[in-house]
Amino acid sequence: MQFFLRCRKMSDMIRVSLRPPPLKKSAPKAQFSSATTQREGGVSMVQGASRGIGLEFVRQLLEKNNKGIVVATCRNPSGATGLLELQEKYEDRLNILPLDVIDESTIEAATTSITTNYGYLNLLINTSGVLSIPKVLHPETTLSKLEKSSLMLTYEINAVGPVLVVKHMLPLLRAGGGSGTDREFAVVANLSARVGSIGDNRLGGWHSYRASKTALNQLTKNISVELARRKDRIISILLHPGTVDTDLSKPFQKNVPPGKLFTREFSVEKLLSIINNAKGCDNGKFYAWDGQEIPW
Amino acid sequence: MQFFLRCRKMSDMIRVSLRPPPLKKSAPKAQFSSATTQREGGVSMVQGASRGIGLEFVRQLLEKNNKGIVVATCRNPSGATGLLELQEKYEDRLNILPLDVIDESTIEAATTSITTNYGYLNLLINTSGVLSIPKVLHPETTLSKLEKSSLMLTYEINAVGPVLVVKHMLPLLRAGGGSGTDREFAVVANLSARVGSIGDNRLGGWHSYRASKTALNQLTKNISVELARRKDRIISILLHPGTVDTDLSKPFQKNVPPGKLFTREFSVEKLLSIINNAKGCDNGKFYAWDGQEIPW
Ligand SMILES: NC(=O)c1ccc[n+]([C@@H]2O[C@H](COP(=O)([O-])OP(=O)(O)OC[C@H]3O[C@@H](n4cnc5c(N)ncnc54)[C@H](OP(=O)(O)O)[C@@H]3O)[C@@H](O)[C@H]2O)c1
Ligand SMILES: NC(=O)c1ccc[n+]([C@@H]2O[C@H](COP(=O)([O-])OP(=O)(O)OC[C@H]3O[C@@H](n4cnc5c(N)ncnc54)[C@H](OP(=O)(O)O)[C@@H]3O)[C@@H](O)[C@H]2O)c1
Repeated sequence: MQFFLRCRKMSDMIRVSLRPPPLKKSAPKAQFSSATTQREGGVSMVQGASRGIGLEFVRQLLEKNNKGIVVATCRNPSGATGLLELQEKYEDRLNILPLDVIDESTIEAATTSITTNYGYLNLLINTSGVLSIPKVLHPETTLSKLEKSSLMLTYEINAVGPVLVVKHMLPLLRAGGGSGTDREFAVVANLSARVGSIGDNRLGGWHSYRASKTALNQLTKNISVELARRKDRIISILLHPGTVDTDLSKPFQKNVPPGKLFTREFSVEKLLSIINNAKGCDNGKFYAWDGQEIPW
Repeated sequence: MQFFLRCRKMSDMIRVSLRPPPLKKSAPKAQFSSATTQREGGVSMVQGASRGIGLEFVRQLLEKNNKGIVVATCRNPSGATGLLELQEKYEDRLNILPLDVIDESTIEAATTSITTNYGYLNLLINTSGVLSIPKVLHPETTLSKLEKSSLMLTYEINAVGPVLVVKHMLPLLRAGGGSGTDREFAVVANLSARVGSIGDNRLGGWHSYRASKTALNQLTKNISVELARRKDRIISILLHPGTVDTDLSKPFQKNVPPGKLFTREFSVEKLLSIINNAKGCDNGKFYAWDGQEIPW
């Protein structure tokens, strides 16, 4: 039987070990720039929005929150047909920007553009991620097939990329907090995967993908510790969307029991409900689509 | 209060999620090559043996097991004065080979040399690891100081490197098993760190190092799942040595409470006792120097 574990109190055990020097506790609290007018509905960013779960996040954010702005980023805006269709309907509220997580200059350019246009962010959803790339990246079935290039590329895209986006967007999220939304906090939501759990790893395989998501979990947890220390009005969480019918899962769907493959609509509805109801005590947690906490 | 958790039964919860296809269960059991004469005391390999904890492993393995062979690898054998001193004393039992984990061809060359000379391995201890490198790698105190190059380099050395060594040595470990030693199994022991634990992360900081060790934990766990499935006579474990007086910890020792900085002798004695007593049920576990299991 599983229990709903959200916002459970952590048992605090003090241990001695080689560890980083303490962060400054009295770091300045984020302040709104007086020049920034906070907009009703807030400003949300979806990174990795061309297809799949990211595109569905954009659609539902625009549909359900009828005042907020959505900044959707992707590698190739002119080829992102799903986003371009949405733009016809939501001309004033959807802003499409180029961003490739392996090219930090594009992250910087997107930061500058959002700073200039809005001056803050209330939500950042990092959805970009790769499991396989035809002729480049093949999820490993055994250790003997592990290639260094796969480990490095998957780490670069799935772990390093989203965290660099958080790094650059942090001042904007500090400026935004929960203002203009129903939340007290700005939210960083990084799309992880249950196979990134070490404690839940019973099947092995997919070394590069698993390790990248596990590292993303640690990096996101690490950010959450810093956010809490600084008393920033931001929380960072990790989300597992379930097994969702997208290009990413397509080659592996034959292993999914009937009825267990979610539509994008269903999964994103569940994930948005977790995001919209997020509280301070959710900071640093790893939730599945149904709100269950996933072991590290 | 902490409990000694070794070989606790895992609670097995079945969950549905996007996951790799099952490994073949009936993969062939490792066989001794009939050409291989198993040597009393076995053949142990210490990777990253030039200094610190690795060098101390070599010393204690030679001293305590008076028949076994030790293969010690390091980036620059001719400059490894500690190893060269040991070689004067243990001429026939210490074999020093060059190996740089970021250069896979050196791993392959070491594999070939061990295959030719001994034909098997009973123990592989991966100790190489970096936290800081003057002018190159600075452990991060805050997210704003995170550099992509640090994340990538630390991952390459601390997570990818040791796992590639395991990949190449696996046939030798299969051939060796526990034969010639007091164990039933060959052991792969990867040096991790408590700061790689996500569940135990209370301080933040050191993003690159933490993420690399967390990924190493997942990769090692993943290997353990494959070893168990294949019924290989090998187990893989993760070890946290405590805070040990070495070059790695030197710049950070001022944060260590008095009496909590271990000597290399003490730490390695404890770790070797975990390794020498390792059983099948330890496969895939993460132990501190005192035998306590560390949360993921
Ligand atoms: N689907 C599932 O069952 C499932 C299960 C667990 C976790 N997840 C996670 O959920 C997230 C979304 O997955 P999905 O199923 O929606 O996958 P998807 O349909 O394959 O979409 C992946 C998205 O990532 C983008 N992307 C890839 N490389 C990028 C880069 N270098 N920079 C920026 N964007 C990049 C793609 O953009 P392009 O169009 O430019 O390629 C695309 O928008 C991923 O992080 C995935 O790991 C999915
Ligand atoms: N000391 C602690 O308090 C502590 C705590 C937790 C975990 N650990 C872990 O314990 C392990 C040993 O640490 P230590 O304290 O003994 O560190 P150390 O004294 O700094 O020694 C590090 C070793 O790693 C080797 N190395 C670095 N890069 C390498 C590469 N690319 N290829 C092969 N070898 C490489 C070094 O060789 P060179 O001489 O060629 O540089 C050296 O032998 C590490 O994995 C560390 O993360 C240590």
